[in-house]
Amino acid sequence: MLLPVSTWPDIESWLKRSKTIVVPIGSMEQHGPNGFIGTDALCPEIIARHAESLAPDDMLVGPTFSVGCAQHHLGFPGTITLRPSTMIAAMADWTESLMRHGFERIYWLNGHGGNIATIEAAFSEIHARRSFDLRGADNRPGLKLKRRDWWDFKSVMTLCNQLYPVGHGSHATASEVSVTYYGYPDHTRTDVEMSPKIAPNGKISDAVQYRRDFPDGRIGSDPTQSSVEDGEKIVGAAAKAVLEEVRRFSA
Amino acid sequence: MLLPVSTWPDIESWLKRSKTIVVPIGSMEQHGPNGFIGTDALCPEIIARHAESLAPDDMLVGPTFSVGCAQHHLGFPGTITLRPSTMIAAMADWTESLMRHGFERIYWLNGHGGNIATIEAAFSEIHARRSFDLRGADNRPGLKLKRRDWWDFKSVMTLCNQLYPVGHGSHATASEVSVTYYGYPDHTRTDVEMSPKIAPNGKISDAVQYRRDFPDGRIGSDPTQSSVEDGEKIVGAAAKAVLEEVRRFSA
Amino acid sequence: MLLPVSTWPDIESWLKRSKTIVVPIGSMEQHGPNGFIGTDALCPEIIARHAESLAPDDMLVGPTFSVGCAQHHLGFPGTITLRPSTMIAAMADWTESLMRHGFERIYWLNGHGGNIATIEAAFSEIHARRSFDLRGADNRPGLKLKRRDWWDFKSVMTLCNQLYPVGHGSHATASEVSVTYYGYPDHTRTDVEMSPKIAPNGKISDAVQYRRDFPDGRIGSDPTQSSVEDGEKIVGAAAKAVLEEVRRFSA
Amino acid sequence: MLLPVSTWPDIESWLKRSKTIVVPIGSMEQHGPNGFIGTDALCPEIIARHAESLAPDDMLVGPTFSVGCAQHHLGFPGTITLRPSTMIAAMADWTESLMRHGFERIYWLNGHGGNIATIEAAFSEIHARRSFDLRGADNRPGLKLKRRDWWDFKSVMTLCNQLYPVGHGSHATASEVSVTYYGYPDHTRTDVEMSPKIAPNGKISDAVQYRRDFPDGRIGSDPTQSSVEDGEKIVGAAAKAVLEEVRRFSA
Amino acid sequence: MLLPVSTWPDIESWLKRSKTIVVPIGSMEQHGPNGFIGTDALCPEIIARHAESLAPDDMLVGPTFSVGCAQHHLGFPGTITLRPSTMIAAMADWTESLMRHGFERIYWLNGHGGNIATIEAAFSEIHARRSFDLRGADNRPGLKLKRRDWWDFKSVMTLCNQLYPVGHGSHATASEVSVTYYGYPDHTRTDVEMSPKIAPNGKISDAVQYRRDFPDGRIGSDPTQSSVEDGEKIVGAAAKAVLEEVRRFSA
Amino acid sequence: MLLPVSTWPDIESWLKRSKTIVVPIGSMEQHGPNGFIGTDALCPEIIARHAESLAPDDMLVGPTFSVGCAQHHLGFPGTITLRPSTMIAAMADWTESLMRHGFERIYWLNGHGGNIATIEAAFSEIHARRSFDLRGADNRPGLKLKRRDWWDFKSVMTLCNQLYPVGHGSHATASEVSVTYYGYPDHTRTDVEMSPKIAPNGKISDAVQYRRDFPDGRIGSDPTQSSVEDGEKIVGAAAKAVLEEVRRFSA
Ligand code: NI
Ligand code: NI
Ligand code: NI
Ligand code: NI
Ligand code: NI
Ligand code: NI
Repeated sequence: MLLPVSTWPDIESWLKRSKTIVVPIGSMEQHGPNGFIGTDALCPEIIARHAESLAPDDMLVGPTFSVGCAQHHLGFPGTITLRPSTMIAAMADWTESLMRHGFERIYWLNGHGGNIATIEAAFSEIHARRSFDLRGADNRPGLKLKRRDWWDFKSVMTLCNQLYPVGHGSHATASEVSVTYYGYPDHTRTDVEMSPKIAPNGKISDAVQYRRDFPDGRIGSDPTQSSVEDGEKIVGAAAKAVLEEVRRFSA
Repeated sequence: MLLPVSTWPDIESWLKRSKTIVVPIGSMEQHGPNGFIGTDALCPEIIARHAESLAPDDMLVGPTFSVGCAQHHLGFPGTITLRPSTMIAAMADWTESLMRHGFERIYWLNGHGGNIATIEAAFSEIHARRSFDLRGADNRPGLKLKRRDWWDFKSVMTLCNQLYPVGHGSHATASEVSVTYYGYPDHTRTDVEMSPKIAPNGKISDAVQYRRDFPDGRIGSDPTQSSVEDGEKIVGAAAKAVLEEVRRFSA
Repeated sequence: MLLPVSTWPDIESWLKRSKTIVVPIGSMEQHGPNGFIGTDALCPEIIARHAESLAPDDMLVGPTFSVGCAQHHLGFPGTITLRPSTMIAAMADWTESLMRHGFERIYWLNGHGGNIATIEAAFSEIHARRSFDLRGADNRPGLKLKRRDWWDFKSVMTLCNQLYPVGHGSHATASEVSVTYYGYPDHTRTDVEMSPKIAPNGKISDAVQYRRDFPDGRIGSDPTQSSVEDGEKIVGAAAKAVLEEVRRFSA
Repeated sequence: MLLPVSTWPDIESWLKRSKTIVVPIGSMEQHGPNGFIGTDALCPEIIARHAESLAPDDMLVGPTFSVGCAQHHLGFPGTITLRPSTMIAAMADWTESLMRHGFERIYWLNGHGGNIATIEAAFSEIHARRSFDLRGADNRPGLKLKRRDWWDFKSVMTLCNQLYPVGHGSHATASEVSVTYYGYPDHTRTDVEMSPKIAPNGKISDAVQYRRDFPDGRIGSDPTQSSVEDGEKIVGAAAKAVLEEVRRFSA
Repeated sequence: MLLPVSTWPDIESWLKRSKTIVVPIGSMEQHGPNGFIGTDALCPEIIARHAESLAPDDMLVGPTFSVGCAQHHLGFPGTITLRPSTMIAAMADWTESLMRHGFERIYWLNGHGGNIATIEAAFSEIHARRSFDLRGADNRPGLKLKRRDWWDFKSVMTLCNQLYPVGHGSHATASEVSVTYYGYPDHTRTDVEMSPKIAPNGKISDAVQYRRDFPDGRIGSDPTQSSVEDGEKIVGAAAKAVLEEVRRFSA
Repeated sequence: MLLPVSTWPDIESWLKRSKTIVVPIGSMEQHGPNGFIGTDALCPEIIARHAESLAPDDMLVGPTFSVGCAQHHLGFPGTITLRPSTMIAAMADWTESLMRHGFERIYWLNGHGGNIATIEAAFSEIHARRSFDLRGADNRPGLKLKRRDWWDFKSVMTLCNQLYPVGHGSHATASEVSVTYYGYPDHTRTDVEMSPKIAPNGKISDAVQYRRDFPDGRIGSDPTQSSVEDGEKIVGAAAKAVLEEVRRFSA
């Protein structure tokens, strides 16, 4: 079930048989010369929806938390970021909303490495409210918060290594660009030249430093390799892995 | 141009000829027995993207700010809300990000009445940072922030009144349900019965009061009248009006 | 009863027969060449106190929330503003204080258009705390928060249109200046010349833009028409309307 | 000059000869059986305005910051408080507003012991913004923030000791009640009995403890001694002292 | 008992016989030419630990809150400060943590005059959370928060006056430097010349003003008089006074 | 050099040859039946100070940030935590203070796994302030923020595996207890029995869940193996690794 196109009675029914929801979470930031600015939000959204299509009765997908922590990409036009403190507040509001309805297990399917720390900090902020509480400690609903980076399944990583033994990279990766090309085949960019073919690697601090050290935005990648066909394979593998994990998480 | 599926060089080019961006902004909240929870986010998104399709070179559409102020709907499962203070912080971060790149005119196409106050408060918060500043007051970039509720064009209101002379309502309206049915025709709900046919009217305070006074979530509406066909007409009218207004706003 | 000059036993007695309080809320901002900086705080204070004098047993008037959202007036000396986020926090503290005593109906009599959005956002922030709460949802005290702009009664608007068919305006209006002249007759300014006689109209963003577009601070008004006599009439009409509405609100 | 009933050109003129403003700051809290809830806000307001009346060209009085830190009085109906963190934010906004116009010396005339710590913390918060700033440290406008408790002048304390050698007290004091009776002679309470005649002394923590230990709200005082005549003397002494100090502060 | 080198079962046992904890709180800020930057944190830590060594079963010493409010010292390298609002948040978190375990009496042994206001504001912020609470007001655990400045015992002040009849001063005092020399004898600075011998006195606002008016950081002091031997005496006197007061506070 | 026992002229001198500072950062939380509550703060402090003792001219050690993110340990008496949002604010204040003096490279030597996410989120928050800034982007001082977990050097991990091939664990580890025993040999606990000998492994959410699943506080460890002798070896290895890395970081 997809929450944004469901009705509230649908969700009321869902909660009678499950307390789990999957929330894609990403970022809106530059992804090099041929990657979409929305890549990190679109990838988990595409994968989660594909997983849902395989087993609509087993998975509820919430709206995508589409703008995350991308301050280091602000040197590139189009990037939109939250401050980590804002993101923590927003994730806490989402979570409290879901808890209000009886959800007890929230699976955040993440598409952005730069979100990892802040997502975990938000989990800690949310749990802290409960941990400080003197009242009813033993008598309250449970809460499990889990983050999964979509690329961080063994099956997915193996596949990506096979597809891109060279130039997979760590930002604007060949695999994530393929996933979005599969999701938005009308928007593929097939004729973009990049130099050097494989982007440099390095450290990240703020926006000025990032653009200076990574002038076209990529880190370590050659996304000219990306294709709709590869994307289809990756989405298939990731969706299968997500579905299995969500089933275990819900059990 | 659609920012999430564009590249940063695309946006760099855009900024050479325009400083304007359109940002759909909505809510994730119950919309009665046959309306989608995402209605208020989907409507401005559908309309903005349709407008963009009519004149891709004249309009840049950003990502949708999809969760807004919906605390009063928390009595209905599936609703997700931000606190107004969180929403102000998030809108300020989005705006500062866009200003960093040189955007000076942000047109927020709103889909939710409950967002109006907080959007305007956020504008005031953002302008206040500039108004307090002692330095360079006369020498800085301009900033125009504009909110437009998609239904608040004369052409759109006239059309809605024609289509739904009775039971248009003020929440879970016949028109907004039609817009989302047009956008997601596979998800229409055609056999939902509602009683009373036209929902009651009244005041809103918090979630407990809302669900008590409006037990199926609607206010004043009969959205069993909604259809894909109506949605198409409304989207056409609204997209045209938005496109014209954005052109004036950018001039 | 006027809370600031009452004792706590007075309020304890009041709460035995009413759960309602009226709070004047305004702003401290320039009001053109002959209007007081305190106009928007003084108007609702004068009107509320006049209403109270008509029926002291039926109306409790709290202290005036006298500094509001006026960032756009910061280009004119004397203006003092809160950020919207500060105003929301302060209004929430006032409200929680009043709820602690058993007040359940707070009627904010507003004197400033620029406050409207933030007052409504504050209401939403306050209600959200209750809406998120999992505990005792059905068993708690009620809370009604209402905003009324003092000029926004039919009787008042009709009177103002009669008194000032031309040049009533929208900032530093003829009517609000008259109200304050009635309240503070020793401070009237009768010999101030203005040019143009009727100030221009236009949009508002931040302080630099405002002072550039409205060089003497007025918008659309000719407050040289203002007088103590007019003020007396307007205060009478507004106080009567407020008193009636507060009685209904309390019922 | 009184800012709330002045115009912006008045303040523009003032700033040509002075960078100083006096801001009365108080609290809205119970003051025992015969003291007004607004006592702590009214006292500095009455004194500051009296001082201004003695030398209107030498003193500019701003609006009264009338709700302060009174959480410990919340056990008594009518008390309204800000959290200290809210008060710091609000005082910072007031100060930044005044600095925007060129004020460099702000004299806060305080009427409430419970405000002292938070006022000083707010000063530190405000100065910290400047102290952290890497830019233009030596080239910016000055800023002096001063707190003066109205009772803390030698002349005032001597007078109060003469008037009330016994039972002056530390909350709902004989002197502060007299000051407000002088300011609002129509609201004096002359027939209120209190038992014990002199209230107990003790420590303060939160609202429950306070009401338990000080059941009628007074601490150490016998305000049945208060009178309009005493108030007139105290206001005279305090206003004189304030005026002298403000002149030195402005020099 | 020293909390940082105790185990949780130790604290569980402690709480069976006492609900009191002593928390040293200080600052990290310049202390003139021969005083340590950590002086204000080290002094209460040294004294508290010495007191604990005299009666380990009667006193539990928590970790030192070592960075406080020192914005005015930022003109001198090495100073680290919190904003007051951050310090309030951190003190509230510490206190809520301790309350979670059953501590009801927290004795903050303070080493920095600049912390006083913010510590008291933090107390008020913490108590306010309880004072606002509508539920269970009479049925909850107690909470006493006490601040004691280590130098503010009669015995300690008398001793300091005897040791340093001239040039004790108010910042980088002869006594506090002696206390730290006693605590860290290997780090004493015996050959630092200062000019003038006794530093000037004056007002404090922000970092630029402070360094301009007090060029070597001292205020009113001649800490060339400081010695390990003096420190031993002062620590002895202060530790004795703290121990006695903590026993009374716990009773 | 150790900042807390240095003078400001010492730090002024240091800054002429280095822009680097090492800040130990830890937590105050239960560490099982024989581990100190301060373990995670003491370990990086002990190691940093040992490293400094090896090359005092090459390393400046700041005060220890001793209370971190430990909400999940609040079920065990003695634990003190910050909320992640508070910790971010405090780390930002520390960093801004250090930047004010000219520090450009801050090396946070971390002792607590639960801090990792929030430290990284704080880095992002701090960099974001710079990334958003429109002014002087290319002309400002640099800023490098680095986190190093003290156990996460190859040499240290190899040693720990040799010392504790079984039962090293992940909370209240054999190695961290040894490090603190080396630092505080008078406080070792040699006769504590634990059952089971090796604690269970599992997931962590909030304080209630943690204490239920890990009843004596340990995770996966057998710290009865810990000893002063082992601690000496580990500190030696870690200090050497830190010193080398800090030299590279400063270069
Ligand atoms: Ni990516
Ligand atoms: Ni809607
Ligand atoms: Ni007005
Ligand atoms: Ni008082
Ligand atoms: Ni000191
Ligand atoms: Ni540990």
